[in-house]
Amino acid sequence: MTGTALDTALAYHRAWTGHDFDRAMTYVAEDVVCDAPAGRIEGAAAFRDFMGPFTRIVVGTTLIAAFGDDETALLMYDTRTAPVASAPGAEHLTVRDGRITRVRIVFDRLPFDAARKASGVDPAVKINGK
Amino acid sequence: MTGTALDTALAYHRAWTGHDFDRAMTYVAEDVVCDAPAGRIEGAAAFRDFMGPFTRIVVGTTLIAAFGDDETALLMYDTRTAPVASAPGAEHLTVRDGRITRVRIVFDRLPFDAARKASGVDPAVKINGK
Repeated sequence: MTGTALDTALAYHRAWTGHDFDRAMTYVAEDVVCDAPAGRIEGAAAFRDFMGPFTRIVVGTTLIAAFGDDETALLMYDTRTAPVASAPGAEHLTVRDGRITRVRIVFDRLPFDAARKASGVDPAVKINGK
Repeated sequence: MTGTALDTALAYHRAWTGHDFDRAMTYVAEDVVCDAPAGRIEGAAAFRDFMGPFTRIVVGTTLIAAFGDDETALLMYDTRTAPVASAPGAEHLTVRDGRITRVRIVFDRLPFDAARKASGVDPAVKINGK
């Protein structure tokens, strides 16, 4: 039984914003492909390495908007994070059989880059994909 | 006669991506409030100063997704620009009486910042809102 793409996208979103990233990953396909600001991320393991550290620095989230159709969903949200007070993001997700197969994510890396430079240490968020 | 919020959002989007920014501005309310990565922009004149220069460096766009309801629309698109090859953005728009009254825009300033530093000149895009 699977619901709409938006159901899956929101279940994924609620899980990671609720600090249950393991549960969030149950909605992600093994062969997920994610286009992020720093480039393409392929496969669930690499996606976990990308999103997991970010979710751990999130201290609050607000869902701004969420829409979808049979196969895709589009979300915008704001996050409060340890290094950056307001870090909004948007995600376009493609869902097949209840699993997220494609993600396009847009967010502003600049304040994370500034926070990293100010702190002098590597960020939890791998903004350059390295 | 006004259509849905999505109709207005797409008319605005088609106009600016088609390099008719004056026409795009006809869909924007005089008292528009826009939350952009660099901060809040208030009023149509300030909004024109923010978006206008960006639209002039855009050489191509692809609409990734567009959804809406009675009052709001959510768009994600990719742009090719002179300084940055792929600069995707997302916009959440609130529409009243056929005019855009609120915009929340998300995009990655980092590659524009890098291009500006590499060129040694001020960018057409005022990424820091100054």
